[in-house]
Amino acid sequence: MIILGIDPGLRTTGFGVIEKQGSRLRYIASGTIKTGSEGALPPRLKVILTGVSEIVATYQPACAAIEKVFVNVNPQSTLLLGQARGAAITALVGADLDVAEYTPTQVKQAVVGTGKAVKAQVQDMVARLLKLPGLPGTDAADALGIAICHANSQDALALIGTLAPANPKKPTLHMKRGRLV
Amino acid sequence: MIILGIDPGLRTTGFGVIEKQGSRLRYIASGTIKTGSEGALPPRLKVILTGVSEIVATYQPACAAIEKVFVNVNPQSTLLLGQARGAAITALVGADLDVAEYTPTQVKQAVVGTGKAVKAQVQDMVARLLKLPGLPGTDAADALGIAICHANSQDALALIGTLAPANPKKPTLHMKRGRLV
Repeated sequence: MIILGIDPGLRTTGFGVIEKQGSRLRYIASGTIKTGSEGALPPRLKVILTGVSEIVATYQPACAAIEKVFVNVNPQSTLLLGQARGAAITALVGADLDVAEYTPTQVKQAVVGTGKAVKAQVQDMVARLLKLPGLPGTDAADALGIAICHANSQDALALIGTLAPANPKKPTLHMKRGRLV
Repeated sequence: MIILGIDPGLRTTGFGVIEKQGSRLRYIASGTIKTGSEGALPPRLKVILTGVSEIVATYQPACAAIEKVFVNVNPQSTLLLGQARGAAITALVGADLDVAEYTPTQVKQAVVGTGKAVKAQVQDMVARLLKLPGLPGTDAADALGIAICHANSQDALALIGTLAPANPKKPTLHMKRGRLV
């Protein structure tokens, strides 16, 4: 299963594509979509749309995941980031992809093992987990981290499926100790 | 020339379609795209994408205009509104439409004649200007107002074109008094 991770931003949107084969993860591609720092918003959002659409057409992911963003101290920045994230999600759902959302803390937890990891630790662990020859850039590393987080989350979901009781109206989970982290 | 106006929002996105024939404006259609008030963001943005795409396919506008939004007192609301607006713009640029942006003040100025008009005045003037048999809803009225604002602005742009000097490197405008409002 091919998974596309997106780290949204107006100037720079990071993307990472990985393949999940059983419990193994394989690096496929990563990079950034850059819109420059000037010009009207609609053409800049079109750059994000076109970029995401090209990545989807090239790598044919089965699903996508995107980082949840938080409000900035500057409300105008929050508004711009929101619009960029909206453009990326719209490009993904427009390609009929399901889009999962994860907080930065969830991504750090999944990749580094602690929600308080710093960016350099995410870069380092992404490179180790995917056996990369060097460190990816921070935006690409974040996007790969989001894809890894989603791959692990899919494992958890599948496990919940096998452990769920037969009666779907009472979805009480019977978890075995230590199997669901 | 058919013009599509959009008043963006996450729960409710208003749309208005008008035709400009010379200096005359004709009402074509208006309404809202509703995403409900619950559920994950990506499917809700998909409703906006699908809705805007259907409107564009049905009415084949030559251009579009969307209201500029302002930061809310609640930063989380600002983020949600930004993403909804990003989805609407992405749907429009994805259909290869140029998208103009106007502030609420510009829209009120164009429709009512004063930037301090209240919503009821916008509804009333939109109904008069387009000879509607009744008042449109506030979201549809705002969207029609945005389309009217863009129609008037196109006049101004065309006028600037005729008044601009031949040398495009020095675009100094020679305006005749009172002709450019």
